[in-house]
Amino acid sequence: MDTFEAIKTRRSVKNFDKNYKMTKEEINQLLKLAILSPTSYNIQNWRFVTVTDQTIKNKLSELSHGQPQVSDASLVIILCADLNSWNKEPERYWTNIPEEPRNALVISLRNSYNGKLEQQRDEAMRSCGMAAQTIMLAARSMGYDTCPMKGFDYDSVGKMIDLPDDHVISMMVVVGKKLKDASPRGGQLPLSDIVFENRFKNV
Amino acid sequence: MDTFEAIKTRRSVKNFDKNYKMTKEEINQLLKLAILSPTSYNIQNWRFVTVTDQTIKNKLSELSHGQPQVSDASLVIILCADLNSWNKEPERYWTNIPEEPRNALVISLRNSYNGKLEQQRDEAMRSCGMAAQTIMLAARSMGYDTCPMKGFDYDSVGKMIDLPDDHVISMMVVVGKKLKDASPRGGQLPLSDIVFENRFKNV
Repeated sequence: MDTFEAIKTRRSVKNFDKNYKMTKEEINQLLKLAILSPTSYNIQNWRFVTVTDQTIKNKLSELSHGQPQVSDASLVIILCADLNSWNKEPERYWTNIPEEPRNALVISLRNSYNGKLEQQRDEAMRSCGMAAQTIMLAARSMGYDTCPMKGFDYDSVGKMIDLPDDHVISMMVVVGKKLKDASPRGGQLPLSDIVFENRFKNV
Repeated sequence: MDTFEAIKTRRSVKNFDKNYKMTKEEINQLLKLAILSPTSYNIQNWRFVTVTDQTIKNKLSELSHGQPQVSDASLVIILCADLNSWNKEPERYWTNIPEEPRNALVISLRNSYNGKLEQQRDEAMRSCGMAAQTIMLAARSMGYDTCPMKGFDYDSVGKMIDLPDDHVISMMVVVGKKLKDASPRGGQLPLSDIVFENRFKNV
């Protein structure tokens, strides 16, 4: 599917065919595309927890105020991030780079994140945001629909997925076969409210 | 361009034709696509500061450790977010929705963000991450290349663009006509290090 079409037709769908199953190959393809999303310093800090098991999806739906798209979609992806990925053998992020510049990158990376908790968390949310949009557009291109979500009990979901102490959950994306179109877009702000040339003015 | 191709060929390009100018129509098209990216509660919290002026791009490059892609790319987009968008006439995010559910949404929205500073900041980073990836893939589809960036002096750039007190900068994306391919990918982690079925194991 054309990229513009994928962007324009991506909507937050709530009604999915609960009997539809995506193949393992399709799920794998989606994840392989997701990890082509950029990350700062190529730290690849995202971690994806995938759920297709109906019992677990039902439990996740309960933890999402009962929202039916979580139990009915074929696949739930919980987008997490490792806050300490910058400090876990970072050399592996640049195996294709000669040793000298690689060592310089490691030093620069550590300076960027060491002790900077807000920076680590920002990076988790940014990286997962970019990967989430890749997943949603790739899924659209495969004929599926998605819903990005943050309306769930983060602590309980974290416990359920054995989230390591130094990881955070950014958001969920559910993927499946649409049964019903999304509602019309709620109310789009005009570009003039959102785009500023060179600097903010009169905000 | 096919969505998969855009995802696969999107790379962080550093060398751009500094004489190349994108048209206003192209920049507008890119931004119109960007704002089709999802945001939680449709709060559309992103704010995009666009720069094409060479003098300002040069100054931004200086504030980015002299990285040449900032001065040489045709367009610099500074992705910012309004941390208080949830509290600024939120009814306008759902003008197409009947009054009763709209009022319920306003209450739910306020409960989600009121006084929750980390949640507000997370939302800024997530929303801008999703929009950044839309911009990068749409630009690719238009025959352009991009580089996502966070290696710049956030405070100084904030002053330069008159960033309002209740806004934050998430990242920059530069867009332009590529002169030289990006370096090969640094070193991709295998899916098995990144993807977990149902829960984290042995991390």
